[in-house]
Amino acid sequence: MSELIRFGISIENHLLERFDRLIQQRNYSNRSEAIRDLIRNELVQEKWKDSEAESVGTVTIIYDHHVRILSSVLTSVQHEFNEQIISTMHVHLDHHNCLEVLAVRGKTKTIRQIADQLISIKGVKHGKLVMTTKGQHV
Amino acid sequence: MSELIRFGISIENHLLERFDRLIQQRNYSNRSEAIRDLIRNELVQEKWKDSEAESVGTVTIIYDHHVRILSSVLTSVQHEFNEQIISTMHVHLDHHNCLEVLAVRGKTKTIRQIADQLISIKGVKHGKLVMTTKGQHV
Amino acid sequence: MSELIRFGISIENHLLERFDRLIQQRNYSNRSEAIRDLIRNELVQEKWKDSEAESVGTVTIIYDHHVRILSSVLTSVQHEFNEQIISTMHVHLDHHNCLEVLAVRGKTKTIRQIADQLISIKGVKHGKLVMTTKGQHV
Amino acid sequence: MSELIRFGISIENHLLERFDRLIQQRNYSNRSEAIRDLIRNELVQEKWKDSEAESVGTVTIIYDHHVRILSSVLTSVQHEFNEQIISTMHVHLDHHNCLEVLAVRGKTKTIRQIADQLISIKGVKHGKLVMTTKGQHV
Repeated sequence: MSELIRFGISIENHLLERFDRLIQQRNYSNRSEAIRDLIRNELVQEKWKDSEAESVGTVTIIYDHHVRILSSVLTSVQHEFNEQIISTMHVHLDHHNCLEVLAVRGKTKTIRQIADQLISIKGVKHGKLVMTTKGQHV
Repeated sequence: MSELIRFGISIENHLLERFDRLIQQRNYSNRSEAIRDLIRNELVQEKWKDSEAESVGTVTIIYDHHVRILSSVLTSVQHEFNEQIISTMHVHLDHHNCLEVLAVRGKTKTIRQIADQLISIKGVKHGKLVMTTKGQHV
Repeated sequence: MSELIRFGISIENHLLERFDRLIQQRNYSNRSEAIRDLIRNELVQEKWKDSEAESVGTVTIIYDHHVRILSSVLTSVQHEFNEQIISTMHVHLDHHNCLEVLAVRGKTKTIRQIADQLISIKGVKHGKLVMTTKGQHV
Repeated sequence: MSELIRFGISIENHLLERFDRLIQQRNYSNRSEAIRDLIRNELVQEKWKDSEAESVGTVTIIYDHHVRILSSVLTSVQHEFNEQIISTMHVHLDHHNCLEVLAVRGKTKTIRQIADQLISIKGVKHGKLVMTTKGQHV
C-alpha cells in the first residue's frame, strides 16, 4: 500500500460550492476521494491511448440466443482469445435476449480487437467496451 | 421475431470502399450487419437520454478489497438496489485488486444513480457505466 | 471575481507522481489548475444533463459547398435559430470542402436541436457538438 | 466527385420503424443520408486512432480575459503552432467570459497537443477538442 501525501489546492469559492453539491449528490464521503477519482479516471484514459500497454477491460454484449449458430460463434471467438478472457457472466433478459459481460486482460489493442470481433457477430445487437485498469498504479 | 425488410441506399464509391475495409477489419460478415449495428447503437444512445425509460446497463468497478469495510459498503449499496441489480461477476486481478461487474436493469436514472453510488465509494479506484438495452426493440 | 479558498486533499504517493507526470505533459503550471479543470469539466457535463438549462455550445460541420442548394439550406436553418447562433467561422479546407463552426447559446435542448438539424443536411459530411458553458459559474 | 453506388441492406421491420422515427426527428431527408452520416462518423473516429494521420479539428475554449497575462499566453501558444492553426473565432459571452474556437489542421497527435496546451492555461475554464476530417475521403 502506498503512503498517503497531503497537499493543498486553491479554488474559487463558488466553484467549490458547486463541486461540493455535485459530490454530495453522487454520495462521496469527502472531497479527497472525489478528486482522487477524477485523477484516476484521467490516468486510465491516458493509458488507453497506448495500444501496447497492458490493461483490463470489460465487454458487454446483448444478443438474441435464437439466432442460428450464434452461440457457437461466440464460443469460438472466446476460445481464440482464451488467454485474455478471464471470466464471463451471462444474464437471461427475456425469452430471446441475453446479456453477456466478459472481463478481459491484455494489451489494449488486443482488448479492442476482442470487442470488435464480438460486437460484429450477427445476432449481437449491441456491445460496448469499458476500458479500465489493472488497478496496480492508480 | 420481426420480419426482414430490404431497402436500397446510395453512397459514394470511395466512401463505400473505405467502409468495406473498416468492417472487414472489424470482422463483419456483411454490410447489412455492420449498418444494423450502427443503427442500433444510435437508437440505444437516444433512449438513454430519457431518464424514465426502462433499460439495462452494466457497471464495472475496480477496487482494492483490503480497504477497510469496503466489502460491506459495497454489499449494502447493492442490497439497497437489489431490485435493479440482476447479477454480479467478481474477478481477482491480483493480491489487492478486484474487478466487479454488475448487470443492472431499471429506469435509466436509477441505473445512473447506482453507478454514481458505487463509483464514489472509498477504495473503488475506477468505475464505468455501460448503457445498453433490454434488446427487445433493437 | 470569486474569493479563493485553500483546502487540503490526501492522496497516495504513487498516484500523485503519475498525476504530476500527466499534467507536466499537458503543460499545466501547477496541480491546483489541473484539478480545477477536472472539477469544472465534471460540472459542465452534469449541467448538460438538464435539457432546460441555459448553456453555450459550438457546432463544427464539414461540408462540400458544391452540393446543390446546400449553402441556402444551411443559411435557412441558421436563420431559423438566429436568436441562439451568436457567430460563425468559415474555413475553406480545399476546393470542395469547408469547415464551419457555430457558437450557439440557449437551452441545452435547443442547442442539441440546432446541431441535429445542421448535421442531418445532405452534403454535411461530418458534424460534432461541443457542450461547454457560459463560464459564469465555473 | 465520386460516383454513386446503390446497394441493398436487409433489416428487421421494427428496427427500421424506430430508425425512421429517429431520423425524422433529426430532420434527415432520407435514410441514405442518415446511414452515410453514421458511416462517415465511424470512419472519422477510426482515423483519429492513428496519431500520425493528417486531420482537421476544432478546439473550443472558454476563458476569463481578466485573468492576468492570459491573452498574451494564449497568443504565444497559438503562434507556436501557427502552421497548424488555420483560423480563430472569438465571442464575448459577457463582461468576463470569452469563447474562442480554433480551426486546426495537422497530424492528429499535434492537434491533441495544441488542445492540451490551450486547455491547461490558467484562466481557461473549459475546453474541448472536436476531432473531425479534412473531408476529402468521406
